[in-house]
Amino acid sequence: MLLHLSTWPEIEAFLTRSRTVVIPIGSNEQHGPTGLLGTDWLCPEIIANEAQKTGDILVGPTFNIGMAQHHLGFPGTISLRPSTFIAAIGDWCRSLGHHGFEKIYFLNGHGGNVATIEAAFSELYAEASFAGRPRGFSMKLKNWWELRGVLALANRQFPVGHGSHATPSEIAVTQWAYPDAIKTAAYTPQIAPTGPIREALDFRARYPDGRMGSDPALATPEKGAELVATAAAGLIEDVNAFSAEIAPG
Amino acid sequence: MLLHLSTWPEIEAFLTRSRTVVIPIGSNEQHGPTGLLGTDWLCPEIIANEAQKTGDILVGPTFNIGMAQHHLGFPGTISLRPSTFIAAIGDWCRSLGHHGFEKIYFLNGHGGNVATIEAAFSELYAEASFAGRPRGFSMKLKNWWELRGVLALANRQFPVGHGSHATPSEIAVTQWAYPDAIKTAAYTPQIAPTGPIREALDFRARYPDGRMGSDPALATPEKGAELVATAAAGLIEDVNAFSAEIAPG
Amino acid sequence: MLLHLSTWPEIEAFLTRSRTVVIPIGSNEQHGPTGLLGTDWLCPEIIANEAQKTGDILVGPTFNIGMAQHHLGFPGTISLRPSTFIAAIGDWCRSLGHHGFEKIYFLNGHGGNVATIEAAFSELYAEASFAGRPRGFSMKLKNWWELRGVLALANRQFPVGHGSHATPSEIAVTQWAYPDAIKTAAYTPQIAPTGPIREALDFRARYPDGRMGSDPALATPEKGAELVATAAAGLIEDVNAFSAEIAPG
Amino acid sequence: MLLHLSTWPEIEAFLTRSRTVVIPIGSNEQHGPTGLLGTDWLCPEIIANEAQKTGDILVGPTFNIGMAQHHLGFPGTISLRPSTFIAAIGDWCRSLGHHGFEKIYFLNGHGGNVATIEAAFSELYAEASFAGRPRGFSMKLKNWWELRGVLALANRQFPVGHGSHATPSEIAVTQWAYPDAIKTAAYTPQIAPTGPIREALDFRARYPDGRMGSDPALATPEKGAELVATAAAGLIEDVNAFSAEIAPG
Amino acid sequence: MLLHLSTWPEIEAFLTRSRTVVIPIGSNEQHGPTGLLGTDWLCPEIIANEAQKTGDILVGPTFNIGMAQHHLGFPGTISLRPSTFIAAIGDWCRSLGHHGFEKIYFLNGHGGNVATIEAAFSELYAEASFAGRPRGFSMKLKNWWELRGVLALANRQFPVGHGSHATPSEIAVTQWAYPDAIKTAAYTPQIAPTGPIREALDFRARYPDGRMGSDPALATPEKGAELVATAAAGLIEDVNAFSAEIAPG
Amino acid sequence: MLLHLSTWPEIEAFLTRSRTVVIPIGSNEQHGPTGLLGTDWLCPEIIANEAQKTGDILVGPTFNIGMAQHHLGFPGTISLRPSTFIAAIGDWCRSLGHHGFEKIYFLNGHGGNVATIEAAFSELYAEASFAGRPRGFSMKLKNWWELRGVLALANRQFPVGHGSHATPSEIAVTQWAYPDAIKTAAYTPQIAPTGPIREALDFRARYPDGRMGSDPALATPEKGAELVATAAAGLIEDVNAFSAEIAPG
Repeated sequence: MLLHLSTWPEIEAFLTRSRTVVIPIGSNEQHGPTGLLGTDWLCPEIIANEAQKTGDILVGPTFNIGMAQHHLGFPGTISLRPSTFIAAIGDWCRSLGHHGFEKIYFLNGHGGNVATIEAAFSELYAEASFAGRPRGFSMKLKNWWELRGVLALANRQFPVGHGSHATPSEIAVTQWAYPDAIKTAAYTPQIAPTGPIREALDFRARYPDGRMGSDPALATPEKGAELVATAAAGLIEDVNAFSAEIAPG
Repeated sequence: MLLHLSTWPEIEAFLTRSRTVVIPIGSNEQHGPTGLLGTDWLCPEIIANEAQKTGDILVGPTFNIGMAQHHLGFPGTISLRPSTFIAAIGDWCRSLGHHGFEKIYFLNGHGGNVATIEAAFSELYAEASFAGRPRGFSMKLKNWWELRGVLALANRQFPVGHGSHATPSEIAVTQWAYPDAIKTAAYTPQIAPTGPIREALDFRARYPDGRMGSDPALATPEKGAELVATAAAGLIEDVNAFSAEIAPG
Repeated sequence: MLLHLSTWPEIEAFLTRSRTVVIPIGSNEQHGPTGLLGTDWLCPEIIANEAQKTGDILVGPTFNIGMAQHHLGFPGTISLRPSTFIAAIGDWCRSLGHHGFEKIYFLNGHGGNVATIEAAFSELYAEASFAGRPRGFSMKLKNWWELRGVLALANRQFPVGHGSHATPSEIAVTQWAYPDAIKTAAYTPQIAPTGPIREALDFRARYPDGRMGSDPALATPEKGAELVATAAAGLIEDVNAFSAEIAPG
Repeated sequence: MLLHLSTWPEIEAFLTRSRTVVIPIGSNEQHGPTGLLGTDWLCPEIIANEAQKTGDILVGPTFNIGMAQHHLGFPGTISLRPSTFIAAIGDWCRSLGHHGFEKIYFLNGHGGNVATIEAAFSELYAEASFAGRPRGFSMKLKNWWELRGVLALANRQFPVGHGSHATPSEIAVTQWAYPDAIKTAAYTPQIAPTGPIREALDFRARYPDGRMGSDPALATPEKGAELVATAAAGLIEDVNAFSAEIAPG
Repeated sequence: MLLHLSTWPEIEAFLTRSRTVVIPIGSNEQHGPTGLLGTDWLCPEIIANEAQKTGDILVGPTFNIGMAQHHLGFPGTISLRPSTFIAAIGDWCRSLGHHGFEKIYFLNGHGGNVATIEAAFSELYAEASFAGRPRGFSMKLKNWWELRGVLALANRQFPVGHGSHATPSEIAVTQWAYPDAIKTAAYTPQIAPTGPIREALDFRARYPDGRMGSDPALATPEKGAELVATAAAGLIEDVNAFSAEIAPG
Repeated sequence: MLLHLSTWPEIEAFLTRSRTVVIPIGSNEQHGPTGLLGTDWLCPEIIANEAQKTGDILVGPTFNIGMAQHHLGFPGTISLRPSTFIAAIGDWCRSLGHHGFEKIYFLNGHGGNVATIEAAFSELYAEASFAGRPRGFSMKLKNWWELRGVLALANRQFPVGHGSHATPSEIAVTQWAYPDAIKTAAYTPQIAPTGPIREALDFRARYPDGRMGSDPALATPEKGAELVATAAAGLIEDVNAFSAEIAPG
């Protein structure tokens, strides 16, 4: 069930049978010579959309801009500063918590988001902790590649050249969903270098075409189909486990 | 051309022939008994997507959560506070301006966004003004119903019962794009009341089912098709005019 | 009744017969070669002061610095950034609401303030909406030239050359109130150009002497007297209507 | 010379002979049973206005709302939080510094403002210090009762019962300037108690009628006239000394 | 009793017999050619540590970074902006107040902190005042050199050359506590100049070696011992007086 | 070399041979019935202090309050909200970077700090990335238990009952450094439960005595001595590696 294609009475009805909502969250940032700029928010959106076709889960709008400051050296990247990101996640969660959602599950598509999303959760919990009251809702962050079975599958599909940015697995997912937007290029070197992440100028100097450790040529729509199916099943399972969790006291 | 389905080299190439980007912006909020929660961000997304099929315009990701505090009394609404909204619009524009975009065009789908978006523009200009330097980019806000021909068409389509929230015109647009998500209900009264907008509790007391002045039963997918076609043409025209505008000096 | 020339027991007594307060709000910014820098806060102050001589309305201190970033290229302009402006309006309203004022009426003298003031209202309402409680007070913004009869009068007085900044109507109001501060100059061109508003450098390049579309030479103290009388009557009427408005439920 | 009754070309001309501007700053807050709510911003405004009649000093608009959180228990008080106050002082000074003012002199009327104004100065200096650049302007805070001769005069006028809030000296200043707004009341006790300042509820419990240590019955317009004359002379002298100060290097 | 060397059950027990906590607060900033960078936070830490050996007072962790923007021209200085400092003091106090501490006593070692700490107190009180509720805790700021007997002793020890920054009294205190870290240098001039405090570049131009009005060569560990003993006794007395203070009503 | 026991000329001299500074960072929070409230900032302070006795590294003041919102249900805990924490880390780093430090190394003692510290790094890098300039300094976060050899040692020392909060390893470190502050208690159960971390009320309900998964009775000063020696050696090695890292380009 997609929240944005529902009416408010439908959400009111959903809340009588579940208190959990899934928010796909990612980033709009360069993904090398052939990866789509939307890759990191498209992947969780694709997976969550697939999952809600079979599972009775509610999927909200996609939070499509995240913390991508290090990619700002490449055209098309849009980033929030962490302080803005924290404020925005806060307002999303306060809105959803206000309606009675008790479990807010973020399906994440961008590793660079993780620290700030966790900090945002702490900011939200801190509001309650300083006031000495219950928060009323819990939050969970899950990267889609950490859903059950996904990493193992990716390792089988891409034993070498997976890397950590503009990876063949994420590109395969978007190839499956957007076959008309498959791009090709020559990669030099075939497998990109790795290293630390700093500010945007430093990033572009280290990783001239934007990739980190990856060989995107390995991606195919078929591998993407496998990844999406595995991830969608894993998502339903993980969301249900989160929904079933009981608070103490 | 959709930014999120492009690669960074494609955007780099686009920037050699145009310095303008279009951002659909809206809100995720209740739209009465039958309107989709996503209506206000789906409409500009639908129109911009249609326009880029025929015009050489670049359309970025949709800014899908806006200023909807007054709708928080209805489940499914997600709102940013104006201060958060200003910060987030700021980071989007700083990112895009950093890449060399000189004209950032927001196609808006929510009247309640207008004041805060304009304030966000002023916040961005003020950074430059206090520093005594050029900003480097200009911003323009256009509501989709103000594109050439749209309001006249809507007036012809809906001579009575258009109203100002959960209007048949916006619902028609989503019906055309998402025919599987058309909802029906009995409306009491057929045309909703009107009045001022205050905080969420006051809003729900004044407008119990969420509509303001509208009769959504008048919407049809066919009327939506007409609206989208007119708006898409108007958008291309208006974006081109904005692109052609020359700065002084 | 002027709040700042009253004592707290007098305000306590006023609150037993009315819950409405009027705040003149404007901007301190260049107004062309002959307009006073204080024009935009002096006009609402003058009109509100005149109105309270005959109507039983309470007028607070003047909020004299607003959103004037685009005028910072001209000496004497003082501006708040929108974010600062929102914070300050917020504290004014929270203070007044805390005392039991339920209707806070801003009489505005600067078009450039409108978006940010409306955003500030939304920020204040949002505090209540996110918490699911009533705000306790309502806010209204009215530009003095929109008070009943004023625009029609100005159109009669200045059928050409009114423009939108450093207008003869606002200058006439200050001429009536501060006859010792009437300034003259030659205007080139007689009627200033018009166009969009961006950052300060852009503004000064487009509008070299600061005027937009206006011919201030048309202003006279006598015309100012008419405008003030009309506006003061309109203010009393509009404030009373706002006071009489009943909240739902 | 009053900035708000001047035009921008007049300020441009003033800047060729002086780089100093005086800003009256105060607070709008309860001043006991008979003191005007505007006392703390009216006093510096009255004194600065008087001084500019004889001295060639430029006086800006009055910053009329300050840090008065402790008085919020009394109707009519309007306060900024310190964080808002710092932001607003910052924007005033950045605006003035941008025009070339190198000395910004705040004539203060409220003891409760001092700490926050000083913190605001540090915030402004810190912007430059973190960037390793000169600030370009200096700021000075002076309470009007610390101008040469004022305290000695007040001690002679009010050897007992001066106190620290709603003092006869500040009330005398407003009586001289606003003789139609002189209020009377019986005081119980004749001299109010003294003690610490905390939050508003604590303040009202300690100081039930709002005064601290003062007997306002001692104020007369004649004493006010003496105070204003002495303070105005002291202000011209102090502003000139500040203008004459040379930066090192 | 040192809070950070205690367990939470020990603090819980302490709260049954006292509701007061002492926080040493200072700054890490240059102190001339021979003063330690930590001087301003070490002094209150040393004194509070000494006091808690004989008095039943609870001493919290040292707040070691303060408002030192003007010293940023000298290596090793670490400063918070006032806005950051206010936020951090706020969270410390909200944390302590949440546990039931009703008196939070800051023993300060840096004059440049005073305004911002007082502003931080007002920010905290304002939260309660705007909400119309009691704050629940009171805060007090005391500079260690203002404790009973300390200034008189310092005047006797250093009749000339005490100055206001890198003073022999503060250096003597650190010499007593850290005898292995005593530094020497030739001072030119022997007594440093005095003047105003502005941004960091201005400061370094006025005070080339960092001192203001002082001759640190006068410091000895023995004088430091006297100062610490006097200050520690004064602290116990002052903290007990603060603890004994009764709120009104 | 300890920064706070140095003078500014000594730091100036140090900067000619190294551009790296180490900041111990932790939290002041409950550590179960017997762990010191200061444990998480004392451990990195102890280790860094030990390391600088043999390695030529510069150790700054300890950042002693971190993100501990979840422990606020236990007396003595002091926490910053993430937004405050980010602002404060930012000012520390901007100060140090201003002096020419190019490598800022945070030795962390609290797992709950990690996300917010990483977000703070991103906030600092983002300032540079949005401006398209180099940041000038790099930051590194290392938890002390991740220094070479430490985790392996702890696993040998505490094969069962290590847990994740109030662990025997961190308590052992403080026992070694503060033998006079060793506390004992009966633990029920001997090994504490584990689970998720949410707001403070939830935390205290799940973990009634504050421990998570640990048996602190296993700690001894001797084990602490081993841990400190291993960690200090690992710190010198890791800091040197960070210092030796060369930026690209």
